[in-house]
Amino acid sequence: MIIDCRSISKEIDEETLKLLTICKTKPKLVSFTINPDSGTISYLKSQQKKARSLGIEYETRVLDSVDDLKSDILNASKDTSVHGIFVSHPLPAGINEMEIAKLVDPEKDIEGRNPLNMGYLIYGKEDFAPCTATAVVRILTSVTSVTGKQVVIIGRSTTVGQPVAIMLLRRDRSATVTVCHSKTRDIPSITKKADIIIVAVGKAGFLKKDMIKEGAIVIDVGINILDGKIAGDVEQSVQEIAYLTPVPGGVGLVTTSILMNRVAKNASRGDSN
Amino acid sequence: MIIDCRSISKEIDEETLKLLTICKTKPKLVSFTINPDSGTISYLKSQQKKARSLGIEYETRVLDSVDDLKSDILNASKDTSVHGIFVSHPLPAGINEMEIAKLVDPEKDIEGRNPLNMGYLIYGKEDFAPCTATAVVRILTSVTSVTGKQVVIIGRSTTVGQPVAIMLLRRDRSATVTVCHSKTRDIPSITKKADIIIVAVGKAGFLKKDMIKEGAIVIDVGINILDGKIAGDVEQSVQEIAYLTPVPGGVGLVTTSILMNRVAKNASRGDSN
Repeated sequence: MIIDCRSISKEIDEETLKLLTICKTKPKLVSFTINPDSGTISYLKSQQKKARSLGIEYETRVLDSVDDLKSDILNASKDTSVHGIFVSHPLPAGINEMEIAKLVDPEKDIEGRNPLNMGYLIYGKEDFAPCTATAVVRILTSVTSVTGKQVVIIGRSTTVGQPVAIMLLRRDRSATVTVCHSKTRDIPSITKKADIIIVAVGKAGFLKKDMIKEGAIVIDVGINILDGKIAGDVEQSVQEIAYLTPVPGGVGLVTTSILMNRVAKNASRGDSN
Repeated sequence: MIIDCRSISKEIDEETLKLLTICKTKPKLVSFTINPDSGTISYLKSQQKKARSLGIEYETRVLDSVDDLKSDILNASKDTSVHGIFVSHPLPAGINEMEIAKLVDPEKDIEGRNPLNMGYLIYGKEDFAPCTATAVVRILTSVTSVTGKQVVIIGRSTTVGQPVAIMLLRRDRSATVTVCHSKTRDIPSITKKADIIIVAVGKAGFLKKDMIKEGAIVIDVGINILDGKIAGDVEQSVQEIAYLTPVPGGVGLVTTSILMNRVAKNASRGDSN
């Protein structure tokens, strides 16, 4: 059974369009990238298409050096005509991700990478929670009540595993949360008991049908290239017994809608004026 | 079996004393409290005793209003003769804890309550991790390797449950972590499988012998008053089959040593000069 993420994305887009009607200035999103490969370029193009389809101004800034990246991010943080900043990842080797994230004005940090926004999470404040984590939580709470449910997260990344864990523990959600990773012993014994499984490991077909219980809800955060096609971290047979988000057209789709929504929100609040 | 936390506390104190020999200025800790009750006063007195025994200057500032608390914290954050700031909790009802925590200079935030320091955790930076969480992790890693172990945390607080979870997931530790709380169904079925259990619920005798497996390591973070005496969250019979930190003389003792160590570290770095 496939979880319909298109309707969730559409719902967010409709909210964004409403916000745009009350904006005094045209919302603007600036995406930074450094020495992009073809995958990054194609991703940014699809982001641009989405922004423009909603009526959000979109600018890509392609940079050659880290110093330029840093000073350009600082400028965009100060620029009152910019309502959202996106920094394409992975960054080139050797760059400290957190140091870059700290340069983004927390209020324009639509991706939720600034450590201040991550810290807010622990206090329950999620305005700029990590965007993919926000998409996961939005999808889950759209399809079920997570309170008291056994949630298993596979993957402990800064942008997905850890923030999703914190967000699902918040009192208005109150899931019981287990985080597994490459050092976890006997993952199947843990996933078999889960009501909800979130997979973000970056390995095609990692989660298999015999690792889950019937009727589980599975959120697939993976984006892998398998035989020239985009594939998630979950084997397709899982949907025979469980509810599964598709890849593509799942978490990524909702994430992009959330990014655009945050740009519109910022512009509608006149934050940058 | 009782885990010897005194020797861990002593080890930290010895490091603190070494740091003091290289300090150019006398380290100073300022503790703030607002309308303190007798319990708070007695706690701050024991903190003062500890500071002075190590050669750290200690000042208690008792305030009557939130406005005074805020302006005094801001002043201490700027005051180059202050190396550490402590704010006594709980704060009076209606005060937003995070707003107070944000006023403390992150570099003097020895308790680790500033949301920026919490966010750093997710990036693996723990210089000013929440102090009680740091004590829990220090005790655990002193007595065992947590890698691949099943850790169950009971309680999802801002200062213990959530930060301990994040800290134990860090790559150099790599525990598998489950966080339970008041909405978790069938806690005993979860704790029975745990290699390590951390209890921070604030209920005397919450964790019982029949809820754990033999040989488990149990960290008791609770401080309750039971029949006029201080008691933890763990029933004493647990130590018949498991390794248990005592209360008092356990996590609290190590936490105080960590607070003092951070003050000394700041003074030795000349951070505030």
